[in-house]
Amino acid sequence: MWLPRRFKHCPSCGAPVEYRIPADDNRERATCTACGTAHYENPINVVGTLPVWGDGVDGQVLLCRRAIEPRHGFWTLPAGFLELGESAAEGAARETDEEAGAQIELQNLYCLMNVTRVGQIHLFYRARLLSTDFDPGPESLEVRLFHEHEIPWEELAFRTVREALQRFFEDRRLGRPFALHSTDID
Amino acid sequence: MWLPRRFKHCPSCGAPVEYRIPADDNRERATCTACGTAHYENPINVVGTLPVWGDGVDGQVLLCRRAIEPRHGFWTLPAGFLELGESAAEGAARETDEEAGAQIELQNLYCLMNVTRVGQIHLFYRARLLSTDFDPGPESLEVRLFHEHEIPWEELAFRTVREALQRFFEDRRLGRPFALHSTDID
Repeated sequence: MWLPRRFKHCPSCGAPVEYRIPADDNRERATCTACGTAHYENPINVVGTLPVWGDGVDGQVLLCRRAIEPRHGFWTLPAGFLELGESAAEGAARETDEEAGAQIELQNLYCLMNVTRVGQIHLFYRARLLSTDFDPGPESLEVRLFHEHEIPWEELAFRTVREALQRFFEDRRLGRPFALHSTDID
Repeated sequence: MWLPRRFKHCPSCGAPVEYRIPADDNRERATCTACGTAHYENPINVVGTLPVWGDGVDGQVLLCRRAIEPRHGFWTLPAGFLELGESAAEGAARETDEEAGAQIELQNLYCLMNVTRVGQIHLFYRARLLSTDFDPGPESLEVRLFHEHEIPWEELAFRTVREALQRFFEDRRLGRPFALHSTDID
């Protein structure tokens, strides 16, 4: 199990921390050797969209080619870390604007994927594209639409992106409603 | 908009931090005045269950009376912070065990509630109780089952608990499937 030891010093007073189990707890926490404060580290949410242009099996999916590490040059759905002060849906819409400059109508929460190995939960919303005018942000080399048979499966940036796309095409092929998929990514 | 300034010192080197906007960013981050590292703060996930004993409109809901602050003495669904190394579903099941000692079969993700004011997302799973033997943990004064007409609406600990219960009884009354509810809590 992946457990980061991100803290070396106490964010409250600056003294060194030790990882130990507080008296009323059952997990190691970064605990200050001076002021005694225990600091908690928790999974982070990554939020994004699966934007589609057009209906039915001819609908095309928007992907962005990454201009940053990790996975520079690989294709991804627009997504990024949820920020304080925004809802998951607001964060997903913001990332779609920042990375693709795409106009969308946000739809339902479609995938919740636990990536426990790296302490993340990935949440993808379906989205309907309102235009094909895009404006790649500084984190994207290019943005384009893909028919299902054009998806660059070998050049996708992340396993959660592959998983979301596979579920989407399968649901679409079988005429299923696009209900929430919850899954764990090893 | 609620933005905490949790960091006073750099968790990496211990020097004081300042909140400022990094060159490639658009939000204030805790930035070390010595080593320059920017530290990110993100919303935290609270995970729990809505455990039900029995079927149909006679089914009873499990609630725990809190033995800790905040909201000592008030009633809540079993829930707590998601920990590193576990999926949302695993965390929800763990909290149900820790706070109620209840035997459950976990069902679908039922509520995703953004509580942006305090930087949290609350995720509640439906759960089927397998027994009425409970074992309240140190965070619970008591654990008991409630019919809908017995729910202590004025003594519930949190708005997300009230919201989840309201949605559940409404879905049940109307014979609707218990599909995911996404909502924002002011």
